Amino acid sequence: MSFQGIKEAYNRIGNIINKTPVMTSRTLNSLMIAEIYFKCENFQRVGAFKFRGAYNTLSLLCKEERKQGVITHSSGNHAQAVALAASILGIQATIIMPKGAPINKINATKGYGAKIVFCDNNLKSRTKTTEELIEKNNLILIHPFDNYNIINGAGTAVYELINEIGNFDIIIAPLGGGGLLSGTAIATKELCPDAQVIGVEPSIADDALKSLKAGYIIPSTYPDTIADGLRTSISEKTFNFIRKYVDQIVTVSEIKIVEAMRFLWERMKIIVEPSGAVPLAAVLSKKVSVENKKIGLILSGGNIDLEPFFQILEKNVV
Amino acid sequence: MSFQGIKEAYNRIGNIINKTPVMTSRTLNSLMIAEIYFKCENFQRVGAFKFRGAYNTLSLLCKEERKQGVITHSSGNHAQAVALAASILGIQATIIMPKGAPINKINATKGYGAKIVFCDNNLKSRTKTTEELIEKNNLILIHPFDNYNIINGAGTAVYELINEIGNFDIIIAPLGGGGLLSGTAIATKELCPDAQVIGVEPSIADDALKSLKAGYIIPSTYPDTIADGLRTSISEKTFNFIRKYVDQIVTVSEIKIVEAMRFLWERMKIIVEPSGAVPLAAVLSKKVSVENKKIGLILSGGNIDLEPFFQILEKNVV
Repeated sequence: MSFQGIKEAYNRIGNIINKTPVMTSRTLNSLMIAEIYFKCENFQRVGAFKFRGAYNTLSLLCKEERKQGVITHSSGNHAQAVALAASILGIQATIIMPKGAPINKINATKGYGAKIVFCDNNLKSRTKTTEELIEKNNLILIHPFDNYNIINGAGTAVYELINEIGNFDIIIAPLGGGGLLSGTAIATKELCPDAQVIGVEPSIADDALKSLKAGYIIPSTYPDTIADGLRTSISEKTFNFIRKYVDQIVTVSEIKIVEAMRFLWERMKIIVEPSGAVPLAAVLSKKVSVENKKIGLILSGGNIDLEPFFQILEKNVV
Repeated sequence: MSFQGIKEAYNRIGNIINKTPVMTSRTLNSLMIAEIYFKCENFQRVGAFKFRGAYNTLSLLCKEERKQGVITHSSGNHAQAVALAASILGIQATIIMPKGAPINKINATKGYGAKIVFCDNNLKSRTKTTEELIEKNNLILIHPFDNYNIINGAGTAVYELINEIGNFDIIIAPLGGGGLLSGTAIATKELCPDAQVIGVEPSIADDALKSLKAGYIIPSTYPDTIADGLRTSISEKTFNFIRKYVDQIVTVSEIKIVEAMRFLWERMKIIVEPSGAVPLAAVLSKKVSVENKKIGLILSGGNIDLEPFFQILEKNVV
């Protein structure tokens, strides 16, 4: 696995994905004395970068595999990404979701024509349900990040960013399972080798930082971070890429994540989910020194439950 | 006043304003069987199209007038627009705001270096305070829409849109004081004469529709619409332009405005204020027939108080 895989992924998916816009903020640049570019994957199809990897992976399945159908477990963006990619390619997708998953995410996934199977809200039930269905229906598992084709797809976001804007001094991406960070690092080190690649995880979900220090994977234990996309632990594949290509991992507090999100909403007028705001949180809290530098931030997604806000609004409507 | 004024305004302000992006939604286009383009003035400086007109008007003041300073009354986007334009041009701005105006708007306006003077929350106090200050300090009044230079500036948004995307069948803009709609109609009728221009106002703030039917201006009486930017009444200048250039005025209910806003937030991941969502409300509620047509919608701004939402989020943070 190398940069070549990301380039090929881009050629494969380029006409199907959204070429997402790159945004800047005068206020932020003058506040931080820096040149900061946001790669807005909240504007990607299904509202998150996950569609890149899902579509890349599914489009690489052979005719026989496509007939078998695919399965994944996720209550988040990966579920919707697999569901939409499968629907475009005419593949049947089965998504395992925990009972009590947000109704808007269930509906969005159903809306793409996927079949949803509920499990109990714990790892054991999820694993059991998934394995039983794979066995019973001969399905192909699409892991959300421990998969080279998924990582290649994820890497196409920064590939687009660098192709559009040119060289960077620093590239910053959120770090959950590590798929996005791995793909980002591989592409960046090829396209601008002098750029630093930094991963950011919530302080209360710092399994990657701990793992790097220990030299082996220390899984997270269901951290209650607001950045719900970053609760998961890194995998063997992503751990290896991070060790090889990532220069630094920094952590941010929950309150700084909300602050960063608020900046993006209030000042830049874009809806970014907590996981997507984590790189900006690192910049705003000066965990990364950006002065006089050119920085690229991957805004990974924009899927957040807006029901509470609109409940308030609707109540006040005549 | 003609299209030439809008073209000249664009040449004057083009390097200072944001060239705002044009966005589309696959979901919406397939739902409405139409080709719908949003001109995203929520990404304009100060978060609204108002900056175009304010900067155009202030940059046309002569040296002597610039020394005098400017004044306006607004608790909304026009206040921030005048404050920022004045700050860029080195002009002292005084903004009259009603006591109890939202603290975020007060702070934003102050942040641009404007002087804020509070009045009581009624027309009489506002007029009195404004007139006294004009008299006392020899200030120049910058009316939010009853001003040709403001209207020319507002017209540059659709000018950019048509230059980028080409001809349209229909152009839809919100209708409050009528400045944006006037500028939009003048530019559209010159650039694609066959396009229909439609203004949309809240059903409970339908002073323009009533005025058109009556043939004279019937002012609105402080309608309590959620679209706070559209509470104001049209003026002599805008009434004349609307009669001359606008093909149709439609109205939308409050709940449809919230629905449209929610679509923009949830599906398109952009923050749009209620007034900016009004054209989409007209489309979603089929007040405008769009099937198989190419439609341009002006999203006028994105300034809305997010405090209630972030209060909920911050409460849940560890």
